Amino acid sequence: MDLAMIGLGKMGINLSENLIRNDNNVVAYDLNEDAKKAAVKLGAKVVDSLEEVVISLKRPRIIWVMLPAGKPTDKTILELSKILDSDDIVIDGGNSFYQDSLRHNQILSGEDIKFFDCGTSGGQSGANKDGNFMIGGDDYEAFKYIEPIFKSIAEKDGYLYTGKAGSGHYLKMVHNGIEYGMMESIAEGFDVLEHSQFKYDNEAVAKVWSNGSVIRGWLMELAQDAFSNDKNLEHIKGVMHSSGEGKWTLDEALKLQVPTPVIGMSLMMRYRSLEDDTFTGKVVSALRNEFGGHAIEKK
Amino acid sequence: MDLAMIGLGKMGINLSENLIRNDNNVVAYDLNEDAKKAAVKLGAKVVDSLEEVVISLKRPRIIWVMLPAGKPTDKTILELSKILDSDDIVIDGGNSFYQDSLRHNQILSGEDIKFFDCGTSGGQSGANKDGNFMIGGDDYEAFKYIEPIFKSIAEKDGYLYTGKAGSGHYLKMVHNGIEYGMMESIAEGFDVLEHSQFKYDNEAVAKVWSNGSVIRGWLMELAQDAFSNDKNLEHIKGVMHSSGEGKWTLDEALKLQVPTPVIGMSLMMRYRSLEDDTFTGKVVSALRNEFGGHAIEKK
Repeated sequence: MDLAMIGLGKMGINLSENLIRNDNNVVAYDLNEDAKKAAVKLGAKVVDSLEEVVISLKRPRIIWVMLPAGKPTDKTILELSKILDSDDIVIDGGNSFYQDSLRHNQILSGEDIKFFDCGTSGGQSGANKDGNFMIGGDDYEAFKYIEPIFKSIAEKDGYLYTGKAGSGHYLKMVHNGIEYGMMESIAEGFDVLEHSQFKYDNEAVAKVWSNGSVIRGWLMELAQDAFSNDKNLEHIKGVMHSSGEGKWTLDEALKLQVPTPVIGMSLMMRYRSLEDDTFTGKVVSALRNEFGGHAIEKK
Repeated sequence: MDLAMIGLGKMGINLSENLIRNDNNVVAYDLNEDAKKAAVKLGAKVVDSLEEVVISLKRPRIIWVMLPAGKPTDKTILELSKILDSDDIVIDGGNSFYQDSLRHNQILSGEDIKFFDCGTSGGQSGANKDGNFMIGGDDYEAFKYIEPIFKSIAEKDGYLYTGKAGSGHYLKMVHNGIEYGMMESIAEGFDVLEHSQFKYDNEAVAKVWSNGSVIRGWLMELAQDAFSNDKNLEHIKGVMHSSGEGKWTLDEALKLQVPTPVIGMSLMMRYRSLEDDTFTGKVVSALRNEFGGHAIEKK
């Protein structure tokens, strides 16, 4: 099908390649000149403004927005709401917070533009080939119209119409929450091995666990790759950043009062990893010293 | 190769079938008559005592013990230490605690019998086909001698010689600890979905997550199967039993002073699930009532 890709970052450029390889025609737009050049090489028709995007597509237009969540996506969707026509279709494939997507849906549907919030999983390699998509949107008929796009770039059975607008990004949010817990659990296991009385080859362990074990899966295969590159991860500092979805999952769990201690603890361990020292540590040390005269470590 | 299987429970009977299908000859022994009949059907030579096992095999004999961890395994290995000859080989494929395996290794090596502690993963289906094995043992040459057995019944790249005696069961222990955390994380995610403002089809969600997502893996495929059988798991009570390996992982982490909050919390959530009511709950309620007059629920 014919569609536009707005945003040619790591995900957008890989999705464009996937789309073009699978016989879709892509009109590509980004502010970055290098990204534009890369898209030209892939065979995309590259344009210089959102207005040109609109001119370049026949109605009903399909616009895939693949930008960082928050302001960049917000701003683009607001602009699109002003220049698109009724029955045009906007897909937000980024990691927007589902409440933002509900708002985007209101803005766009107010102009009779169809909106789909699409959670995209599978990383950069999935964006490039056999990706994973969770797609929410109020208009199921419009979904059927764009379904061939997802069918062409997804893994077999790797896309799902999840229901009403917001439900796609909500599902992706929970997916990422689960991912936090799974990653922390795998990491804690390797940490025990690292300190154990036995000597394990981390790569060999991740490899055997990737083949036939109960805990096999893509994350374990990625661990194997990582240990293959750097057998004890000596070149990586154990600082775990996060981009919001884990926190949103926890926010949501608190709102719904659903106990999610493991996902919550995974998030807390990420925050802990960002600090070289903690005020918690100072307070506990001070109290131990006050009541028991236990030694404190001075700065 | 020729070997004996001691213990024809769910795992032992499936391993026997796997072994026989892959051109090994199995001498089988169990106390249970039905299990014996099942083994005869598979083509095993079934015998009635450990002494008969010994008579039925040529030296060096290979004896695979597949019994519940603890007393049954302990007792059998002690008996074997008395009736086997030097250079015979004992494989404990069960879920023994690694400290027990270190003890078993001492007992057997005292009689010049080779011992291998083999962690077995992949569940009953893996035991039956394309299994996963983590094998520790002090004698690498003896491992090379029995390696064809593992090669014949394991998934490709699904077995690993892990080093010294004890290291196989230790690795399996940590594998199970990771499994606890991964399962709890997946479960918490579905719990959020279950309470959310959107209506999700659990089976469809597990299916899409199994195909191309970052969190794809065998556990997610098993979740899909479970939801396919019972779409909201209405026929299952949320009581989570455990068989020891998660606790051992946590014991080990405490011994090594390695922080494993997610694996620890997963274990605590299992214990919590075993109680209809908790004394913790009573104490917190009583204290809230004492200081703030907050209502308590009476039994």
